[in-house]
Amino acid sequence: MPSISRLSPRASRLIRSARVAHLATADRRGQPHVIPICFAFDGKDFFSPIDEKPKRTAPRALKRVRNIIENAQVSLVIDRYDEDWSRLAYVLVSGKARLLFRGEKHREAVRLLRRKYRQYEAMAIHERPMIAITPKRMTAWGKL
Amino acid sequence: MPSISRLSPRASRLIRSARVAHLATADRRGQPHVIPICFAFDGKDFFSPIDEKPKRTAPRALKRVRNIIENAQVSLVIDRYDEDWSRLAYVLVSGKARLLFRGEKHREAVRLLRRKYRQYEAMAIHERPMIAITPKRMTAWGKL
Repeated sequence: MPSISRLSPRASRLIRSARVAHLATADRRGQPHVIPICFAFDGKDFFSPIDEKPKRTAPRALKRVRNIIENAQVSLVIDRYDEDWSRLAYVLVSGKARLLFRGEKHREAVRLLRRKYRQYEAMAIHERPMIAITPKRMTAWGKL
Repeated sequence: MPSISRLSPRASRLIRSARVAHLATADRRGQPHVIPICFAFDGKDFFSPIDEKPKRTAPRALKRVRNIIENAQVSLVIDRYDEDWSRLAYVLVSGKARLLFRGEKHREAVRLLRRKYRQYEAMAIHERPMIAITPKRMTAWGKL
């Protein structure tokens, strides 16, 4: 299983400094879906809370959540764009996603997310499901 | 079929001003793949060239190309991140992708891409396949 220790220091830095990643899921018929997400990384797994607006949307109604329930295979990319294309870079993660509803791992993810994003301090992400992604493969590209 | 005329002026502006989009494909087993892409939009279709490094990679060997050949369903997101989360926004496109190898549509895509990205003027994208995405659905979210 890949872990942060297998990544180069620069790839780790890109992951740790990025404020947004892009998560691709697919439904059971193979229709992909991609959205920007906020995320935290504990050195092994990636976490992204379900904090969708409008608040009245039930978490399970979200397309990404429905897709993960149907098909746990996901892909996540963390990238840097620059008009100097010699500086383009990304880290691509392929893995399995699952939903956490409570427990120690959920609490730790909330802590990591609130440390990284002050915006979450005022949001009830501790009461919402959390997407956890365990990488099966991580690939770095570009001048990291 | 949705077109730029169906999008709000702000959604159109987000699409036209964005330098990068994220393209999700999936293989025939439903494993998603997502990467950042440069793109142009002609008001109807999105275009993204195959300009991968290393140059020696055959275009058909690229995962996104293999996936499109296996499964034409794709999703594309154009988004804006801001630390003020009231300003987050995205336009999500679901559609069908195909590869263009030559012809008027390919030439027009090359023209649009070179007008948008000066970096392409020095690159042989006119000799490379082009991904064309025809939207089936476009959804805007956030304060566009």
